[in-house]
Amino acid sequence: MSVKKNTVSFSVIRRLPRYYRFLGDLLASGVGRISSKELAERMHLTASQIRQDLNCFGGFGQQGYGYNIHQLHREIGKIIGVDHDLQAILIGAGNLGQAIATHMHFEKRGFTLTGIFDCDAQKVGRQVAGLQVQHSDDLSAFCAQRHPTIAILCIPKTAAAQVAESLVELGITGFWNFSHYDLRVDHKNVVVENVHLGDSLLTLCYQATHNIHTPDFL
Amino acid sequence: MSVKKNTVSFSVIRRLPRYYRFLGDLLASGVGRISSKELAERMHLTASQIRQDLNCFGGFGQQGYGYNIHQLHREIGKIIGVDHDLQAILIGAGNLGQAIATHMHFEKRGFTLTGIFDCDAQKVGRQVAGLQVQHSDDLSAFCAQRHPTIAILCIPKTAAAQVAESLVELGITGFWNFSHYDLRVDHKNVVVENVHLGDSLLTLCYQATHNIHTPDFL
Repeated sequence: MSVKKNTVSFSVIRRLPRYYRFLGDLLASGVGRISSKELAERMHLTASQIRQDLNCFGGFGQQGYGYNIHQLHREIGKIIGVDHDLQAILIGAGNLGQAIATHMHFEKRGFTLTGIFDCDAQKVGRQVAGLQVQHSDDLSAFCAQRHPTIAILCIPKTAAAQVAESLVELGITGFWNFSHYDLRVDHKNVVVENVHLGDSLLTLCYQATHNIHTPDFL
Repeated sequence: MSVKKNTVSFSVIRRLPRYYRFLGDLLASGVGRISSKELAERMHLTASQIRQDLNCFGGFGQQGYGYNIHQLHREIGKIIGVDHDLQAILIGAGNLGQAIATHMHFEKRGFTLTGIFDCDAQKVGRQVAGLQVQHSDDLSAFCAQRHPTIAILCIPKTAAAQVAESLVELGITGFWNFSHYDLRVDHKNVVVENVHLGDSLLTLCYQATHNIHTPDFL
């Protein structure tokens, strides 16, 4: 099972985590096998859409027997890369940073959180998710020693661009960005996942005022 | 300027908040007019895509003169419904709930946050975003008196379905759901915006392990 790079559309990539989540929930509830029809109903997709998506990765399942959920979940996990153990640091230990550090189950999703940093002396030294918050001044030494590759930005919009630039110089190649700033780091090999909660809230506003339910993207 | 219901695709609806955000940033930086070409470059879309999107709502701008940003921003805001002042309550005053309450600028996005509730006696009485956290037992009386229509769920997955059902009975017709649970409320006229941060993290994992940058959805 392998990814044919450049042949997989962004829409399919965006759907993979959703497949992974639904299959994980099915596994947890003790279901071992599922037809594309039933999976489609649960996920509010069509059966042919599901077959098409999974075919991008070489296909799973046997005609008439449905999918082996355990196998499918494992394979999609491998495609996503959850077995990679990417080392992540979190910048900004405010409420959002603390919530992210505490609740995200990084290990299940391909990451280990190894450091939390803040420039506010009052936050430095606190325990969050089993880690002691460090001062941002110590970032450089930490990166030189531990070589994290992923940074989670829970900092104000005004600081995001500059902090991101410094982090790239320290070896960061991927960002999970909550800063309400459209982060684009113009370096080759740097990837960014922006989370625009404000856009999500506006989408809810549209849905509520038009009474239209739009499908999830995230 | 009006929305032709049923003729606007979900993808266009999902892009509206992004237009609104970019145009707001342009306004804030003092830009008054922009061509579809320049807006396209900033937003990493094509000019024809932008013209097509805005045509769904009756079209804006004049050939050769570009868009009047102030007007376009205001009109898209109206389409989204930011002038509706929807009354929202937040359920769950943990770190995530506090972060959402404190940082989301609800008023700018069509909402007023009027109540925060938690079932943890230790959180009740605390001040968050200018509101005093109330006990969940007081939800029913609050809703009967104030009639909020939107609920923001920052509660554990296990509680989400049941809490949502009770809230619908109390008159809630829209949910912003952070509970890691695929909330579907099977009532007519109830809309749900799920925020699956776990899926976003998995998308980052895919991007980082394949070194592919996927466009933002949220």
